[in-house]
Amino acid sequence: MPIDYLTNPPIGDDEMMAAIDIGSNSFHLAIARLDHGEVRKVVSMSEKVQLAAGLDENNILSAAAEQRGLDCLSRFVARLDSVPPERIRVVATNALRQAKNANDFISRANKILPKPIEIIAGREEARLIYLGVSHTNESSDKRLVMDIGGGSTEFIIGQNFDPLLTESLQMGCVSFTQKFFADGLITKEAFNSAISGARKEVLAINGRYQKTGWSSVVGSSGTIKAVRNVLVSKGWADEQERITYKGVKKLEKLLIKIGNIDDIELEGVKEHRKAVFPAGVAVLRAVMKVLGVETITYSDGALREGVMYDMLGRFASEDVRDRSVLALIKRYSGDKKQAKQVVKTSRHLFEQVKDKLALSNDDCDLLRRAAFLHEIGLAISHSSYHKHSAYLLEYSDIPGFSQVDQKRMAQLMLNHRRKLKADMLEQTCQIGGDQLVYLCLLLRLAVLAHHSRSDYALPELELKVVAENSWQITLADSSEHYAFLLADLRTEIDQFAKWGVQLSVIEAQEAETPKVEQLPL
Amino acid sequence: MPIDYLTNPPIGDDEMMAAIDIGSNSFHLAIARLDHGEVRKVVSMSEKVQLAAGLDENNILSAAAEQRGLDCLSRFVARLDSVPPERIRVVATNALRQAKNANDFISRANKILPKPIEIIAGREEARLIYLGVSHTNESSDKRLVMDIGGGSTEFIIGQNFDPLLTESLQMGCVSFTQKFFADGLITKEAFNSAISGARKEVLAINGRYQKTGWSSVVGSSGTIKAVRNVLVSKGWADEQERITYKGVKKLEKLLIKIGNIDDIELEGVKEHRKAVFPAGVAVLRAVMKVLGVETITYSDGALREGVMYDMLGRFASEDVRDRSVLALIKRYSGDKKQAKQVVKTSRHLFEQVKDKLALSNDDCDLLRRAAFLHEIGLAISHSSYHKHSAYLLEYSDIPGFSQVDQKRMAQLMLNHRRKLKADMLEQTCQIGGDQLVYLCLLLRLAVLAHHSRSDYALPELELKVVAENSWQITLADSSEHYAFLLADLRTEIDQFAKWGVQLSVIEAQEAETPKVEQLPL
Repeated sequence: MPIDYLTNPPIGDDEMMAAIDIGSNSFHLAIARLDHGEVRKVVSMSEKVQLAAGLDENNILSAAAEQRGLDCLSRFVARLDSVPPERIRVVATNALRQAKNANDFISRANKILPKPIEIIAGREEARLIYLGVSHTNESSDKRLVMDIGGGSTEFIIGQNFDPLLTESLQMGCVSFTQKFFADGLITKEAFNSAISGARKEVLAINGRYQKTGWSSVVGSSGTIKAVRNVLVSKGWADEQERITYKGVKKLEKLLIKIGNIDDIELEGVKEHRKAVFPAGVAVLRAVMKVLGVETITYSDGALREGVMYDMLGRFASEDVRDRSVLALIKRYSGDKKQAKQVVKTSRHLFEQVKDKLALSNDDCDLLRRAAFLHEIGLAISHSSYHKHSAYLLEYSDIPGFSQVDQKRMAQLMLNHRRKLKADMLEQTCQIGGDQLVYLCLLLRLAVLAHHSRSDYALPELELKVVAENSWQITLADSSEHYAFLLADLRTEIDQFAKWGVQLSVIEAQEAETPKVEQLPL
Repeated sequence: MPIDYLTNPPIGDDEMMAAIDIGSNSFHLAIARLDHGEVRKVVSMSEKVQLAAGLDENNILSAAAEQRGLDCLSRFVARLDSVPPERIRVVATNALRQAKNANDFISRANKILPKPIEIIAGREEARLIYLGVSHTNESSDKRLVMDIGGGSTEFIIGQNFDPLLTESLQMGCVSFTQKFFADGLITKEAFNSAISGARKEVLAINGRYQKTGWSSVVGSSGTIKAVRNVLVSKGWADEQERITYKGVKKLEKLLIKIGNIDDIELEGVKEHRKAVFPAGVAVLRAVMKVLGVETITYSDGALREGVMYDMLGRFASEDVRDRSVLALIKRYSGDKKQAKQVVKTSRHLFEQVKDKLALSNDDCDLLRRAAFLHEIGLAISHSSYHKHSAYLLEYSDIPGFSQVDQKRMAQLMLNHRRKLKADMLEQTCQIGGDQLVYLCLLLRLAVLAHHSRSDYALPELELKVVAENSWQITLADSSEHYAFLLADLRTEIDQFAKWGVQLSVIEAQEAETPKVEQLPL
């Protein structure tokens, strides 16, 4: 690992941690105590908020759904007193990924929550689910794990604690209810259409999944739990209480016979599950058919458990994000040596100003990773490569990063070279506040300092915040490249000014200004 | 090579071909005859149009510069009667890459020209320059080739006819004149600033270039030719008439002594070269210093020769574009098997309608390559992968493709799946006319036909254009997937309608409509 700055102290035994999962159908809270390295849940709450049902055809979240969500979060927050904010994570999945006005909800929710919401991408959700399942139901089998959510369904093949394949498909029990069972009628035709829609999605991943293969199948999520319950109560599960494909087909027939969502009265299907149950069954049936799955074991562990185990890893410096960063630089064949030099200098600059600028350990991590990756866009094209770096960081599936992390990284990429634009300041602020603005400026200085890509020692760079929005950089004349660096730094004065920071460049030796003839050419 | 459709007949001996190079400083025309596989120039014209000098600070091309360009092209066109349009290529470089209103100029120019202008990316320009130099000055040395243009400077390391590294940097004799010698004065300070600016650009590639290494250096372009001429006339070149670093330094001193652009009177520097000469010398000096180049041999062959040799390759089915397509699918680890199936089906559909839709061999190539690459965006993320495919195709440096080729490919990526949007039709039309619209629709059908990613034989697909904007697809009931394919095709009816094409889906067997129960689940 070339990145070896441990920024957070590990979580000690007996300490508390918490995860909130803002799902498309339900919100979940889990609070746990660390007990000999194991996460032991002490509080577990779920509320059926049905956020996804509040999305209209233009993916606008209704005010009523927003309010239901905020009310639920307030109730959760009331339980969080015992947990320090740095050990809480709040993740949101498909409904907020889709909602065009998600920012409204998020900014209102962030006023209530002790830690801001992170929207996570589908594959990241899949990774975390696997982490939860694999820690809750340990096994050395190669397993296929699936989680049928309200808006998306995740598929993971993994072994031990390592996910091998992760995917998230756009289908879920809430969205499929709206599409195929909106009138409440449960007909053969509705089932066939829903199965057909789900089949199309699953086919897209079938080839790769079959190639990797698995020896057993585990399912999490409310849909799978409810199906398991019904099958067990009807005697349609197998002797290990597993869901069977035959049983699911029987369940489909039974639901068609019942004919209407309002008339579902089945042991194990709670009141609030009824409305989305037939769609969930249709998705499950299509998945089992296409992938050729005969039996599924239900697992209680899922996303929120995964979030907590992921947090443990972060604190123990087995941060999956660093693994992802290395994988990215490998895929896009970046110049690691240059990357490491920029990491080192950005860290050096960061340490000198972090207190004055109120920068946190998380900010330090962000800057370090951005410094490591800033050139990956070169793999696409040299011209405007910073824009390509930004695109790759914003849109790639990067294990361990939330979407807002990725957006922050993308802002750092976008502004690390070339002219700063005054109108980008607002965007950067909106995404990451003043802190992100400062990180951009620090990264610019670090990148500029290594412009020559040489092995020569840099002149000593001393950075100070002398007043609000007034920075001073001093450099000692100790390098062959001194004159160039000085000239480059001076061109930054105008750039910083556009972002409201006055930069002064000081030469440590109070000799006369170097003359143009001193350029070492 | 999995792509083995030869679409153009090779160029025969004694046949004519032509290339127009719309440069930032000069426009060039070359007409050549093929003589035993060699390109023999029969006409060579150059005009100092100074397009780049007509760009204002917002990169808007002035009306006067546009007119100069159009006038020049008219004069060129008068010489092109003997050359069939399919053997003409018109390429444009940095000035049009930069100009925000390039489309104005291009659409006016395309009315005059027998073949539309292709804007090529910097690295593609570099590749073509190398092709020109390596065919004009053959050698088995590992060579560094540089071409200092008006707006950009290209650097290539290559051996025999193969470029190993290609780069294009944003510096040239016209842009650097505007930045550093705008007042016409030639001072030490102006030189130092220009050298400093050029140095910064060259440093970005220095590491990689040194690592690859070279044993000799060749320069093309007017700047290098003029420097060579002066050095030879002053006795400052070496005995092989090569440019020497020492000689360039002497030339710099001489120019500073002259002091003003208007007073340059040097043997070998033509009237129209004077204004941009000091900036060209400054760029050359910085390049030689940073890269450690002692001597440079001038080569007469450059971009326009490269364009002609590239054309020869295309016609002889050694098309560099197919090599690029394979490299892309390798880098982004695409599923080649699926890609080839889609290529095959899209070709099958294309052949059935090409005459009615007036589709050309070039259209066939475009569809084939797009079909091969349509899934590369999956490497970034599964969700909206078609958008990522489009981004990669629009912005990557892809040897052999012009920017408009890449834009066309990007449109095909963007519209190959999910809903078609009515407002995208206009964009697609603008970029590639009705032909591109038809290609999008053909690709959609081919991708859809292979949705199941299975090895099963497809039902026979018969596609007919039955009237203007009215297509009919017939499929025979011969496959397990017949019912699904039929259902998928029917969903396309609405999509096609949004783009103004009426699609009818016909079942070959006039049996009753398959019932929902027939879904093979």
